[in-house]
Amino acid sequence: MKPLFHPDIDDVAPADVFAALADPIRLGILVALANVREVDKARCSDFTAFASPSLLSYHFGKLREAGITRMRMEGTSRYLSIRREELDQRFPGLLDSVIETARRDPNLPRLGPDWPAGAEVPQGRTSSR
Amino acid sequence: MKPLFHPDIDDVAPADVFAALADPIRLGILVALANVREVDKARCSDFTAFASPSLLSYHFGKLREAGITRMRMEGTSRYLSIRREELDQRFPGLLDSVIETARRDPNLPRLGPDWPAGAEVPQGRTSSR
Repeated sequence: MKPLFHPDIDDVAPADVFAALADPIRLGILVALANVREVDKARCSDFTAFASPSLLSYHFGKLREAGITRMRMEGTSRYLSIRREELDQRFPGLLDSVIETARRDPNLPRLGPDWPAGAEVPQGRTSSR
Repeated sequence: MKPLFHPDIDDVAPADVFAALADPIRLGILVALANVREVDKARCSDFTAFASPSLLSYHFGKLREAGITRMRMEGTSRYLSIRREELDQRFPGLLDSVIETARRDPNLPRLGPDWPAGAEVPQGRTSSR
């Protein structure tokens, strides 16, 4: 399998980033990922409620090719994360305001409150589930 | 002549705004307008160096239909301004970070330092031109 293309963050232009954000499904994916602090908790397959598999693949590709997300493949799983540190360094303040703006949009697709499944329960709390 | 369409700012979705920003010429126009503090100092015809007239019209339309700019027609002149207050109210912090990001992009088209022509010279200073 050929490795997935991830652009050098310095090659990403602002217009590329905005093009990748110009879709409610991609903004919904971004908002969901922004809530995940742990690496490898978000799988591409978690987003099947957002769109058909082929359309999802297209959207994941748009986010990845614009330098916004990183996709890691392991076996049959594909893990997704935001390239937060790199983006914050290249475009200071932009990602935060984009995520904040998207969070307030009531029309974006969302994952349920139980997502991501298997997130660590902080010490001292017990899960009721 | 039929009046130009300007969307109600509450009908503008974040994805619409990002779609309008997904082009270096439109980002260049936005950065130029962000430097203008006076109303009616920016004319559409000031941007002829950025693109052909028909392409410029297309870009002005995209910015206007996404609620980012307002266009006012008077006689044969078309004046352009950012809907800053409305945007700041609807998407707090977004416009500033977008403009800041675009300002740092060395590849956007720019207007010369003499633009906008006829800007008021502050009291106590004399123009050397």
